[in-house]
Amino acid sequence: MRSYQDILRNVVTKHPLVHCITNYVTINDCANILLACGGSPIMADDPLESAEVTAICQGLVINTGTLHEHTVKAMLHSGKTANRLGIPVILDPVGAGVSEFRRSTVQNLLTEIQFSVIRGNLSEIRCLYTDSKCSRGVDANQSDLINTDISEAVLMSRELSKQTNAVIAVSGAVDVISDANDSCLIANGSDRMARITGSGCMLSAVIGGYAAANPDNIKTAVEAAVLMHAVSGEIAAEKSGSDGIGSFCTALLDTVDHFTDTDHYHEIERRARVERI
Amino acid sequence: MRSYQDILRNVVTKHPLVHCITNYVTINDCANILLACGGSPIMADDPLESAEVTAICQGLVINTGTLHEHTVKAMLHSGKTANRLGIPVILDPVGAGVSEFRRSTVQNLLTEIQFSVIRGNLSEIRCLYTDSKCSRGVDANQSDLINTDISEAVLMSRELSKQTNAVIAVSGAVDVISDANDSCLIANGSDRMARITGSGCMLSAVIGGYAAANPDNIKTAVEAAVLMHAVSGEIAAEKSGSDGIGSFCTALLDTVDHFTDTDHYHEIERRARVERI
Amino acid sequence: MRSYQDILRNVVTKHPLVHCITNYVTINDCANILLACGGSPIMADDPLESAEVTAICQGLVINTGTLHEHTVKAMLHSGKTANRLGIPVILDPVGAGVSEFRRSTVQNLLTEIQFSVIRGNLSEIRCLYTDSKCSRGVDANQSDLINTDISEAVLMSRELSKQTNAVIAVSGAVDVISDANDSCLIANGSDRMARITGSGCMLSAVIGGYAAANPDNIKTAVEAAVLMHAVSGEIAAEKSGSDGIGSFCTALLDTVDHFTDTDHYHEIERRARVERI
Repeated sequence: MRSYQDILRNVVTKHPLVHCITNYVTINDCANILLACGGSPIMADDPLESAEVTAICQGLVINTGTLHEHTVKAMLHSGKTANRLGIPVILDPVGAGVSEFRRSTVQNLLTEIQFSVIRGNLSEIRCLYTDSKCSRGVDANQSDLINTDISEAVLMSRELSKQTNAVIAVSGAVDVISDANDSCLIANGSDRMARITGSGCMLSAVIGGYAAANPDNIKTAVEAAVLMHAVSGEIAAEKSGSDGIGSFCTALLDTVDHFTDTDHYHEIERRARVERI
Repeated sequence: MRSYQDILRNVVTKHPLVHCITNYVTINDCANILLACGGSPIMADDPLESAEVTAICQGLVINTGTLHEHTVKAMLHSGKTANRLGIPVILDPVGAGVSEFRRSTVQNLLTEIQFSVIRGNLSEIRCLYTDSKCSRGVDANQSDLINTDISEAVLMSRELSKQTNAVIAVSGAVDVISDANDSCLIANGSDRMARITGSGCMLSAVIGGYAAANPDNIKTAVEAAVLMHAVSGEIAAEKSGSDGIGSFCTALLDTVDHFTDTDHYHEIERRARVERI
Repeated sequence: MRSYQDILRNVVTKHPLVHCITNYVTINDCANILLACGGSPIMADDPLESAEVTAICQGLVINTGTLHEHTVKAMLHSGKTANRLGIPVILDPVGAGVSEFRRSTVQNLLTEIQFSVIRGNLSEIRCLYTDSKCSRGVDANQSDLINTDISEAVLMSRELSKQTNAVIAVSGAVDVISDANDSCLIANGSDRMARITGSGCMLSAVIGGYAAANPDNIKTAVEAAVLMHAVSGEIAAEKSGSDGIGSFCTALLDTVDHFTDTDHYHEIERRARVERI
């Protein structure tokens, strides 16, 4: 836990600038949660400027929601620039299985860019793993949420990590973070996170901030980000109580913001349900 | 009312996946309100994938705000796919009269696609009816709100329904839902709904969810959606009180979410001001 | 102060329609704050319709965040149309220094369009002034916030005003509004405004509304808009207290909305820390 707190402290201290090439549904949420967690966002998705923007940043997040033809070029330019400069790159393969366009784009990105982290729900990670159409959409499948097959997530994420050399984070009722050999299970969170749009996109943005501030410690940074986000969701669900998802969204941002005061870290520690396998 | 409750129950039970090709101003609100009302959103507007995305969905919503040339192609591909597969298609002709580009696009969509539902404010529906420039913008004209000419709305909506074979919903101080022969007037709602962006877009998304879960009962589904949305606006205005539109937005999402518990339906029933003519 | 109140009254009375060509990160916030302050937004950024949309509006706001190649054409069409029709045009050169694409676009816009107002943070205004890369990103630099060099802001804004014939507004811990000869310093606001995305974009949208309703009194309109926004930020920070940036966003919209009741103007007056130099 102490190492997680150090990770967070680095985000707040370094205030890393993170370039997001992301979908238009949750782009505002991603910018605000990056600010809330102590980072600084910059959004740019035109190939005319994307590489140049990446070059002034400490992290890059590529998200395939509302994918456009011209954005794919921006992703490739930025991803290659980040690789050349040693800047961590996060992939969020939103809806990887919903169309041939997304499937082939994700495969192309995986071929051309070395990712530091890949984060998705079980359907999306399964898609990357099997390279076949399997996603119902951008949500986690209901089955992911109810009967999360943790052992499947562990197996797939480790294999995918071997193939890609990236840390893999699978979101679900229990979150799984793996490299090739080890997995960390985080059992925090709230059902309500699946009832708002952008919970996963926001987590990927936060991972971008955490990785940007801790480039030499990516796996721990991912774990710390996932834990903070999941605990924040848990607290936000308690705070918003019976109020519904509008209040939950507000409370989620509030809670992530609350944790940029590292003195509050003991609240995360107290709730943490982390297991290593 | 019982039939409306059944409509809502189907949305919650079937959790329909709804493809939205929509504007970037309110795209986040549309996604969240679809989730709030029990549906599941997917946004995709590139012609490279739009038809494929539609084919895995149960409903399609086409919204002409922030219209782009490439998006029109996506709308046509998706609309035709939906028609071929028998998936309900909703048109929200945002700002139909603000430019020749929107006017001709809307006419083109009406020619190429069979819509199940068309929803707009009085200015927009008048535009479709007269095919002339008449909209002040994307808001309802002030005159729409204050002196809603209900008889004009009834007349136009029935005529437009005859021409298009779609159910027509005209939003205003009193909402009018018509097919060729019958109209339903709903006198619920709140002035405050016209003071936020996206109230109409959100209603169209909700209609998409309701129609997707009730494809054999479209007109009743539209009525149930309009009533639920209007009553939610009413309750949200009461809840947010003198707090302003920020709190109102949050309360609106909260209230729509509240009604996915069908046990709360009596609250809608109690407030319903529905008349048939 | 009385003149500021008159400015606000004109916005509420005239309910001006303001065309925004703006970035996708904060487009929803810009629409909502325009409504909150008494105006009416319309967003359109395709060159196929932008000029036509501008022509039915009373104000135009051009914002260079998430800049796209096709949007630049829309900006030029709309800006020239606005100039021809005598409609006030506001430039928000978001991230002016982050790439050659943005830098050259901003220079091109400045050459082709006569702006009524240019609003940015110190980094952005410095970029326009020196035409060199100097911005860290879309945020104000930390140094801007902590050690705002007011005399630099005054000097640069007056010089830039001479070069461009626009009123210049520089946002920071102290806001500076200048024409070629005079400056107005506004020391209201809250640190928290820099911790959310879109605070600056929203202010530019509000300035668009205020200028649109007061085309013959632009400088006073800008001062009134900056003061109202800064005081709203101050009040929103107090209202949201220790709750974090989610609640702050909501409270900011609420407070701007609150001031459309001009009877509340004394609250702005009481807090105003305005100095002329």
